[in-house]
Amino acid sequence: MQPPVNTIEWIGEADDGHLRLLDQTKLPGAVTYLDCRDVETVREAIKRLSVRGAPAIGVAAGYGCVIAAQQGDFLTLADHLASARPTAVNLIWAVTRMKALGSDDPGALLAEARAIHDEDIAMCRAIGEHGAALIEPNTGVLTHCNAGALATSGIGTATAPMYIAHERGVPFRVFADETRPLLQGARLTAWELNRAGIDVTVLCDNAAATILRSGQVQCIITGADRIAANGDAANKIGTYNLAVLAKHHAIPFYVAAPTSTFDFDLPGGNAIPIEQRDPMEVTHGFGPPTAPDGVAAANPAFDVTPAELITALITDRGLIRQINTEQIRQALGLSPQAL
Amino acid sequence: MQPPVNTIEWIGEADDGHLRLLDQTKLPGAVTYLDCRDVETVREAIKRLSVRGAPAIGVAAGYGCVIAAQQGDFLTLADHLASARPTAVNLIWAVTRMKALGSDDPGALLAEARAIHDEDIAMCRAIGEHGAALIEPNTGVLTHCNAGALATSGIGTATAPMYIAHERGVPFRVFADETRPLLQGARLTAWELNRAGIDVTVLCDNAAATILRSGQVQCIITGADRIAANGDAANKIGTYNLAVLAKHHAIPFYVAAPTSTFDFDLPGGNAIPIEQRDPMEVTHGFGPPTAPDGVAAANPAFDVTPAELITALITDRGLIRQINTEQIRQALGLSPQAL
Repeated sequence: MQPPVNTIEWIGEADDGHLRLLDQTKLPGAVTYLDCRDVETVREAIKRLSVRGAPAIGVAAGYGCVIAAQQGDFLTLADHLASARPTAVNLIWAVTRMKALGSDDPGALLAEARAIHDEDIAMCRAIGEHGAALIEPNTGVLTHCNAGALATSGIGTATAPMYIAHERGVPFRVFADETRPLLQGARLTAWELNRAGIDVTVLCDNAAATILRSGQVQCIITGADRIAANGDAANKIGTYNLAVLAKHHAIPFYVAAPTSTFDFDLPGGNAIPIEQRDPMEVTHGFGPPTAPDGVAAANPAFDVTPAELITALITDRGLIRQINTEQIRQALGLSPQAL
Repeated sequence: MQPPVNTIEWIGEADDGHLRLLDQTKLPGAVTYLDCRDVETVREAIKRLSVRGAPAIGVAAGYGCVIAAQQGDFLTLADHLASARPTAVNLIWAVTRMKALGSDDPGALLAEARAIHDEDIAMCRAIGEHGAALIEPNTGVLTHCNAGALATSGIGTATAPMYIAHERGVPFRVFADETRPLLQGARLTAWELNRAGIDVTVLCDNAAATILRSGQVQCIITGADRIAANGDAANKIGTYNLAVLAKHHAIPFYVAAPTSTFDFDLPGGNAIPIEQRDPMEVTHGFGPPTAPDGVAAANPAFDVTPAELITALITDRGLIRQINTEQIRQALGLSPQAL
């Protein structure tokens, strides 16, 4: 299974190469690329969601560190890059890993960035293989936002089980929440699944409850931007809504994420910082204003789904069905927690 | 408490007068009016949601029948008008009532249409007075879509308790779901509440779960387009979603509706016809397409909230807390059900 699209690419050599990103703000209307030759451009691309999705941000940040070294001020620029967005742990994780090399040689850093990239591709594949069996023939799968190929450099996280099931010839259909305010589900998930030949139907977020009640959906799979030690998962706003609906309708709710998305420094979801984005994304997202001038709008970019609402975590190391700190550490091959 | 806006008005006399409707498709950008001088224009205004909301549709249909009589083919044109939209029972109710007069004299019909209009204003006021005490000082109220002044010819249904509480000096704030796909919450509810000086914050529908969890909301009030004999309530898509969330968060969930919204011909919600609207409303609602070409979109306009998820019905005859067919008939002053 090849990813349906090349989200992130390093062009050229370490000393004078650059980072090429698919500009996701232009999808589905146009497939255009951003060439990033300085850290500020990478940081802006992350901030403006030209590249988005926790794993893809991590890979982009790895290459961004190579550019930081090219610019001759690796540590300062790497820290600046790490501050682009607060919620996705992969951003900090990737920058920390690049700094841990202890080198500001672009060659050494590029090798490490490529390693992060290769691991991301393998991680997606592993999530897909662990999760594919959850999609039974002739069922419906609902997903939210885009935890797809576009959110990674491989076949995605939430979409990975879908791509692998599709590769295995399993017939199923996907319902994609459009995912307001930025419509990543309609613009991105529908685009990449359709491109891969998977049957996908877009719906308004508020229609999910009725679709679940109708019996057309047998499981929900979303991604995560950060998962606390106890399994509480931060993801795109609306994910928690789906988890509550899943419980009410007795439909399994899965969160797919790589090991790098887990943040063992945070005991629970309440400690995850939630990015509040510009209210204009809600009120002016489509050109003409959709709300009256002077009316307030709330725009939390993420919500937190408590572990008890998650049926299983689909990780690159396998499924985790009993979700608590010890089980997660064990499943991910980490040492037992220090007490 | 005057309505913050004049949604529906009859201009002139019975024989040569006409119906003036506020064109709600143009809000919040512009306050413009549609002058309707033939039934087809009224029917199109209902179909295209220039006038919308079950009670307002009923009032508009009453005046539409006067126009049908002016055009000289009252019965045929009245039936044509009644077929504009399938879910709101008030449309059929109003046309049936106009036909029951047994006259095609525009004068007699205008008097009846004015009676429907006056009753609607009184009905809104009564709902507001019965519901206002549910809004306690310094609390938050969440609403969905627009069951406001714009959806009636008075102070609305779901909004009526808000307007009366505001009139009484009770401080509270409102959270208005933007309500995809047509954004009636952002465009209409926020507009009219803001115009009336009520503190209102718009949010994406998928953010409601997180707002409820945050403790900022103490009750949810929505309208209804049709309520079956057992209390199951059809309303704008996303209402059922909120009802499930309310249950999970132990927040009271109220449905405000006049007697005319109850349809005792339908035993339960499964019998309520649900209008499926053009998928383009989902994928092309804002100009440029928000989903890729060729991808399917689901666009159910309504959903059904089962009576067991409704804390109380707020009607013009009072609150109904024990929701079943007998209690509803009794509360609305109807004779016991024939067995």
